[in-house]
Amino acid sequence: MTTEALRKLLEAVQAGAVSPEEAGAQVLDAMREAPFEDVGFARIDHHRELRQGFPEVILGLGKTPEQIAEISSRIVARGRPLLVTRATPEAAEAVRQRVPEAVYHPLARVITLEQGEIPRGTGTILVACAGTSDLPVAEEAALTASLMGNDVERVYDVGVAGLHRLLSAQDQLRRARVIIVVAGMEGALPSVLAGLVAVPVIAVPTSVGYGASFGGVAALLGMLNSCANGVSVVNIDNGFGAAATASLINHL
Amino acid sequence: MTTEALRKLLEAVQAGAVSPEEAGAQVLDAMREAPFEDVGFARIDHHRELRQGFPEVILGLGKTPEQIAEISSRIVARGRPLLVTRATPEAAEAVRQRVPEAVYHPLARVITLEQGEIPRGTGTILVACAGTSDLPVAEEAALTASLMGNDVERVYDVGVAGLHRLLSAQDQLRRARVIIVVAGMEGALPSVLAGLVAVPVIAVPTSVGYGASFGGVAALLGMLNSCANGVSVVNIDNGFGAAATASLINHL
Amino acid sequence: MTTEALRKLLEAVQAGAVSPEEAGAQVLDAMREAPFEDVGFARIDHHRELRQGFPEVILGLGKTPEQIAEISSRIVARGRPLLVTRATPEAAEAVRQRVPEAVYHPLARVITLEQGEIPRGTGTILVACAGTSDLPVAEEAALTASLMGNDVERVYDVGVAGLHRLLSAQDQLRRARVIIVVAGMEGALPSVLAGLVAVPVIAVPTSVGYGASFGGVAALLGMLNSCANGVSVVNIDNGFGAAATASLINHL
Amino acid sequence: MTTEALRKLLEAVQAGAVSPEEAGAQVLDAMREAPFEDVGFARIDHHRELRQGFPEVILGLGKTPEQIAEISSRIVARGRPLLVTRATPEAAEAVRQRVPEAVYHPLARVITLEQGEIPRGTGTILVACAGTSDLPVAEEAALTASLMGNDVERVYDVGVAGLHRLLSAQDQLRRARVIIVVAGMEGALPSVLAGLVAVPVIAVPTSVGYGASFGGVAALLGMLNSCANGVSVVNIDNGFGAAATASLINHL
Amino acid sequence: MTTEALRKLLEAVQAGAVSPEEAGAQVLDAMREAPFEDVGFARIDHHRELRQGFPEVILGLGKTPEQIAEISSRIVARGRPLLVTRATPEAAEAVRQRVPEAVYHPLARVITLEQGEIPRGTGTILVACAGTSDLPVAEEAALTASLMGNDVERVYDVGVAGLHRLLSAQDQLRRARVIIVVAGMEGALPSVLAGLVAVPVIAVPTSVGYGASFGGVAALLGMLNSCANGVSVVNIDNGFGAAATASLINHL
Amino acid sequence: MTTEALRKLLEAVQAGAVSPEEAGAQVLDAMREAPFEDVGFARIDHHRELRQGFPEVILGLGKTPEQIAEISSRIVARGRPLLVTRATPEAAEAVRQRVPEAVYHPLARVITLEQGEIPRGTGTILVACAGTSDLPVAEEAALTASLMGNDVERVYDVGVAGLHRLLSAQDQLRRARVIIVVAGMEGALPSVLAGLVAVPVIAVPTSVGYGASFGGVAALLGMLNSCANGVSVVNIDNGFGAAATASLINHL
Amino acid sequence: MTTEALRKLLEAVQAGAVSPEEAGAQVLDAMREAPFEDVGFARIDHHRELRQGFPEVILGLGKTPEQIAEISSRIVARGRPLLVTRATPEAAEAVRQRVPEAVYHPLARVITLEQGEIPRGTGTILVACAGTSDLPVAEEAALTASLMGNDVERVYDVGVAGLHRLLSAQDQLRRARVIIVVAGMEGALPSVLAGLVAVPVIAVPTSVGYGASFGGVAALLGMLNSCANGVSVVNIDNGFGAAATASLINHL
Amino acid sequence: MTTEALRKLLEAVQAGAVSPEEAGAQVLDAMREAPFEDVGFARIDHHRELRQGFPEVILGLGKTPEQIAEISSRIVARGRPLLVTRATPEAAEAVRQRVPEAVYHPLARVITLEQGEIPRGTGTILVACAGTSDLPVAEEAALTASLMGNDVERVYDVGVAGLHRLLSAQDQLRRARVIIVVAGMEGALPSVLAGLVAVPVIAVPTSVGYGASFGGVAALLGMLNSCANGVSVVNIDNGFGAAATASLINHL
Repeated sequence: MTTEALRKLLEAVQAGAVSPEEAGAQVLDAMREAPFEDVGFARIDHHRELRQGFPEVILGLGKTPEQIAEISSRIVARGRPLLVTRATPEAAEAVRQRVPEAVYHPLARVITLEQGEIPRGTGTILVACAGTSDLPVAEEAALTASLMGNDVERVYDVGVAGLHRLLSAQDQLRRARVIIVVAGMEGALPSVLAGLVAVPVIAVPTSVGYGASFGGVAALLGMLNSCANGVSVVNIDNGFGAAATASLINHL
Repeated sequence: MTTEALRKLLEAVQAGAVSPEEAGAQVLDAMREAPFEDVGFARIDHHRELRQGFPEVILGLGKTPEQIAEISSRIVARGRPLLVTRATPEAAEAVRQRVPEAVYHPLARVITLEQGEIPRGTGTILVACAGTSDLPVAEEAALTASLMGNDVERVYDVGVAGLHRLLSAQDQLRRARVIIVVAGMEGALPSVLAGLVAVPVIAVPTSVGYGASFGGVAALLGMLNSCANGVSVVNIDNGFGAAATASLINHL
Repeated sequence: MTTEALRKLLEAVQAGAVSPEEAGAQVLDAMREAPFEDVGFARIDHHRELRQGFPEVILGLGKTPEQIAEISSRIVARGRPLLVTRATPEAAEAVRQRVPEAVYHPLARVITLEQGEIPRGTGTILVACAGTSDLPVAEEAALTASLMGNDVERVYDVGVAGLHRLLSAQDQLRRARVIIVVAGMEGALPSVLAGLVAVPVIAVPTSVGYGASFGGVAALLGMLNSCANGVSVVNIDNGFGAAATASLINHL
Repeated sequence: MTTEALRKLLEAVQAGAVSPEEAGAQVLDAMREAPFEDVGFARIDHHRELRQGFPEVILGLGKTPEQIAEISSRIVARGRPLLVTRATPEAAEAVRQRVPEAVYHPLARVITLEQGEIPRGTGTILVACAGTSDLPVAEEAALTASLMGNDVERVYDVGVAGLHRLLSAQDQLRRARVIIVVAGMEGALPSVLAGLVAVPVIAVPTSVGYGASFGGVAALLGMLNSCANGVSVVNIDNGFGAAATASLINHL
Repeated sequence: MTTEALRKLLEAVQAGAVSPEEAGAQVLDAMREAPFEDVGFARIDHHRELRQGFPEVILGLGKTPEQIAEISSRIVARGRPLLVTRATPEAAEAVRQRVPEAVYHPLARVITLEQGEIPRGTGTILVACAGTSDLPVAEEAALTASLMGNDVERVYDVGVAGLHRLLSAQDQLRRARVIIVVAGMEGALPSVLAGLVAVPVIAVPTSVGYGASFGGVAALLGMLNSCANGVSVVNIDNGFGAAATASLINHL
Repeated sequence: MTTEALRKLLEAVQAGAVSPEEAGAQVLDAMREAPFEDVGFARIDHHRELRQGFPEVILGLGKTPEQIAEISSRIVARGRPLLVTRATPEAAEAVRQRVPEAVYHPLARVITLEQGEIPRGTGTILVACAGTSDLPVAEEAALTASLMGNDVERVYDVGVAGLHRLLSAQDQLRRARVIIVVAGMEGALPSVLAGLVAVPVIAVPTSVGYGASFGGVAALLGMLNSCANGVSVVNIDNGFGAAATASLINHL
Repeated sequence: MTTEALRKLLEAVQAGAVSPEEAGAQVLDAMREAPFEDVGFARIDHHRELRQGFPEVILGLGKTPEQIAEISSRIVARGRPLLVTRATPEAAEAVRQRVPEAVYHPLARVITLEQGEIPRGTGTILVACAGTSDLPVAEEAALTASLMGNDVERVYDVGVAGLHRLLSAQDQLRRARVIIVVAGMEGALPSVLAGLVAVPVIAVPTSVGYGASFGGVAALLGMLNSCANGVSVVNIDNGFGAAATASLINHL
Repeated sequence: MTTEALRKLLEAVQAGAVSPEEAGAQVLDAMREAPFEDVGFARIDHHRELRQGFPEVILGLGKTPEQIAEISSRIVARGRPLLVTRATPEAAEAVRQRVPEAVYHPLARVITLEQGEIPRGTGTILVACAGTSDLPVAEEAALTASLMGNDVERVYDVGVAGLHRLLSAQDQLRRARVIIVVAGMEGALPSVLAGLVAVPVIAVPTSVGYGASFGGVAALLGMLNSCANGVSVVNIDNGFGAAATASLINHL
């Protein structure tokens, strides 16, 4: 209930068109109003689009294929774009039975459906990754950023141990408005890359590695301790989160 | 052996009705008496009901289906309610061959059988959870609390990132006498929720999440460091433990 | 603004006694109203007492003596009881210059002032601890529980390696309505004690120990993994938090 | 050496005005040219300003007062603004002997000197913090953001356990273009706050807390696992890093 | 080569019966002599029996069934008892093809063959465990101790949350010369038990538990921090190691 | 109350010499009897000597000098030997004011007083340590073992990186009945040493080291994972605990 | 572009044989030149051989069989030796369909193809391991070192608990120019071995073990804290990395 | 006792010049001979020089100034060079009272005395560090390498966030035979630097940093997970260890 709507309601009360009881109920209702859809096991947050410009995204992890398909069909039914991350092939199958036009990207483990209008971001989001094994997370980021209305460029396999590969991509780096850097193992790429540019860098550690990589902890710590300016970090393997942040920045 | 029983025995000795030898043996027996049933691989603690108002609950984890079925049938044979947590479908099958009326709840991985009389708790235990993926733990808590003689309400998928979903449930929150809050990832729900109510909150971290959630450690630490009053914490994924504590409180 | 107040306001609008503009402003004000006192570096939450029956408690850690003294004087000025935890002697000195009747308890590192009326809890809160070194935390809990309107009993130095010391205190254990158990090192006391009673046990790990106690982590993990029913846990050394929870339970 | 300069040099060679030997030396010199000032124990990176719009910032930690004073005087001598973080009073004293107009902010442990021209950012950077103990880190962020050419607003002590304090500040939240959220203990504030806005949130965990806060690890993990969109994280207590990132975003 | 053998050899040299060259070769050979059998992938340490009274035991973990069978047949061929721990059914099958009289104990995952003479220990080794899920480790300990020539008693499922179960077994506890205590979860049993007896207690943490048990770390830390005297600890799930130590003590 | 005493009491009841009321009171008293001395902040466990052959030992850590002095004087007053570990010079001073004949060993941080009769152990306890920095812990072990009635030998600075130092001490190793091995850093000495002997080895990790020694964790893990038989482990820096266990073994 | 090449180019400009425009383009091209082959998902670093004497090695972990086969065929097509580590049988199958002469070593999980000329190292690289379970990592090291042009010797199963096995191999140890030591569990072998030789020791912790070995962390920490000189460490299970370092040393 | 010496002795026995008894005693003595000096609290390993070309180095940490001075004077008395690491000013003072010509380097916390002949290494050892705060560790490495007979170059403050600083030092990098790289925070320098050279790189993580650097753990993990070839790692802050390894390599 906006200030304007409240004023009109109160004028109607003054004019006798609406009784105080009914007006009170309306005000209280507005305060209680639940801007979400309750499907029992989930409360789909349709309000999120109002707040953040993109509908609720479904994290597939820990949900059954049926739950994912049910939530997906509700979002699609409202004419909005669909994004499911960490989706298994089984979840994709279940979604496609109810939303046949949905697309499954197996490398990125992502289900997408573009529909409705999404505001376009200003510049380009660059997704860089250190090695071939980082591709699933990098692609999750790239697909998310693209679906959220951004131009996306990719620069892959530019790990710091062969510096010339990164240096040869400097033109691309300088064209970007925001850069997402995906790296496992020692996670040094964000530090080196952020020293070459003047735009925000979102660092995504990956669980790529073995032994003392501890499932991505080594890369995470490396990125948190980056000596370069402009680096902020998201959770291990969270390509989606990096893209959502980058998209917010690119839409400023 | 109570004080009263001891007094009577000693009077019988004085009266010559019982010899000192026999009385001595009785006293020593009472001191040694083992209030449990020894089935070789387990000592079923029937005494627990006397102490805590509910018979021993079987933690299915690490026990074979046969062991679970054997212990279950002993408890049921005494006319007492049955609760097995962390039960696999194989364990449920084995139990039902010996206790056909037992019910298996696959989402909560719990086997139950209501029988005998259980004292009723005073008020309502509310079970809240942050996301759809927390449901197995939330349901373990809700089923346990219900079987232990409590009225149970559920408020699911009210994570803090969409605060209006939680705020819209404030009436339910205020009706509860004890609240169990189940959350994974950053585990922030107990802090926010406990700031809205004046009853004890039992927080249950879940292993829902990935990367730096470290199997529930992030949620656990978040809850232990809660800046809200009235929050205490149980082990990761321990829906049963939260319900047992909540039930004790609700039976005060 | 309660439902009742809203109804009256709307009737006044209908009656022409209040203009719609003014009523609208009042409603919006009520929604915005900040039930706290802003002193620049802190927003003292006077609303907390309405919600939870006790005014905001000051955690001394990380605040300067001047900040603590300023917040203390604001709370005392409203006629409410004062509780500062983790207070250094310097903080106590600063508080007493502005609130001369405040009392400093050096072992518990707590500043208290009893004033105003506090609702009394129903039964007794028992504070048990495993060793002499746990006393500072146990006393923080006992003083907090007492100030919050509860009868408090203490059973100290009853660690599990000399079981007869605990068993000799069983009468006291059985009289309690809630039990706070404070233990460092292996933190086994809550498990053993909870097996002897039928009331909720709040376990407080302490940082007492050395080497592989890791500042209380060993005790914390022991308590979280307790095989006994009815045990919930608060942060390491958090005597205050245990008492606040116990008091909520005892006031049900 | 730019493309243009190279072309001119080569034309001079063709014209015979410059010998090949000399031209070769010039090209190689340009490739070798070190855009930093070597003072023995440090290589002051004057090139950073060209890349990132602000001169090198001095991390005081682990440097002697003399080293800090020497580097400071070199930066000031070039007419550029000075920022030293984690500066002890001794370091401030040493700097002021060589740069008398430098200002020391003891709460934030920061030395600043505004001089020269700094490009202004577009909107406002809001710095929010959860509790009074988070002020040193919050102030480090606010002072850094201000010195880097941004308008700064502060909203302090709005922790999630008293939600009304945060909700009462929603107008300020919505005015901001970037938000820095500083929180210790369970670190839940960024999740809740990011759910209320549509701008990027930079989360800064602090080492405020005790016991299982593990020097800020609990808050760090909470923030990395945030279920809210648009949250990225910097190192524990790294107010400077958050502000540097926020400033980059605000200057896009 | 003993002192006596050396003396005889030198006398033979003096007597001219052995040339200096040959004697030198013998002395050097004795210094180089390798008291093990090299089978390429392993050096079977037959010398161990001389040093420690029992032949080399095979840790099945990380070895192929063929490697285990090959080493087993070499040990059996020398007429010595066989013990393989952490043996899979496949390993047992492979061993039995070459050593048909070997026995596989599936609960304890142990292969045994009693043959040859083993010196008997003095008293009884008691193996106690806290819960049914600890049986695999407890049985590994009990079978090992028995094979190494000790009388073994078992007291199972005597966890501390139902103290009467342990207290009822005090007679057995007092009969033992060494006690092995096996416990998972909070690992409190060794502390309580060691307080009731005056013999050495070898504590074995198990990986039984979930969540914050961290695969046995909680129990391990609990035992290392035991406040009871006479408790020493072996690796998580290392029933064999506890029994080997207990047997050494029982053979003193 | 022994069986014999109980029989005599019951015969007195039968004979009319004792009334049932009085006898009942005596039996109940015996069951309640507290074999400890309550000094308010501590319950001194005089019963421990009956159970374990040595009076309660005072862990100085976390106790005030006054508390230590008070407990010490109670133990000495009963004519028993005194042992305080982790005693500061201040504690030693406080103890000596009340027990002037007590001796302070500053390297080992131990206060001792030999008096009364202590049963002698059978053989020799050898205390070995890896480096000079391990001496405080090694001396705590050696002094404890000696006071508990054992012959003690010392072999110091025999770390594995200079193996000839250890090999030159083999005669001493073979004379021992129990061996305590104290080592920091990588903690490899127990593995190597246990491979050379056939007696139980109690391994004590020390906090000696830096960086990735993590306050003794590296040594602790090394010892828990020892591939040698007969090694059990106590807490980091717990020289006392190792000696108490070794003494129990040596008194078998 | 070398200094010499630059000089010649500039002389050609002076001579009019090359225009300034073209020369400028050549210089800029040389600065931009990308010495790698871009296959979309990977940038194969052919430049690495120029820098380090051996072509890029493929880490199989996290790459699909198709990706591995594609990169392998590119390397082989240039006539260079092939090395794939952590290769699954599926990857080996895929590689052999395109490079039929490639060899798969299942124990070491390595694919190799020797072709082209590799410079020979000076001395012998010795690979030692502590137990049979360490063989996969030891073989990865030995095969890598051999393919990189080094003479390799193996000494396996010489763990420190049976010291005579190691001492009997001293001749081999002394012949080596570099030693790779592979060990799991407590990881003590490098310390002991490095004390016997005067050449660099590269220590490789393995994930062999259970319980508190924490997947190789115990061995890793042991090696990092080695009290012996000349020990440096690589990642857990990183046989390849140890061999690459050893080969660099052996080629000096 | 060498083979040659043994042969001569046995010939003397044959010739009757030495009796078998005496010869036997000599052989046994040689086997027992302890090539170290026992000063009670330490066994100074003079044999180490024979094995490794440099006398025993004293780790000052955990030793008293008196112990350090005593061991120092013994080493100097034998005409050998002295090196004490982690020496406090107090230790330096104590050493200089007994060895007046010893030199204390306060930044590196090292005491040195050059005397006697040390074999020279072949090439140059380069010591690089990432930031000014890493200087103490870098200097410990440089001084150690120099004292051990190596030419040393230093390249300081070349962290990866300002890549041009490192690239400008490529000539120096290429001149080195071994490179020691010292870095804290994210520890990325070794990966980047090793990709530019073809010589072994010894990486030294430092404890420089705060928050999630965890005392050097972030840098340590980064280095262990380096994607560059030829990197091996030593303990956090272990400049000495890196230099000792580098010196061994440089003396090959």
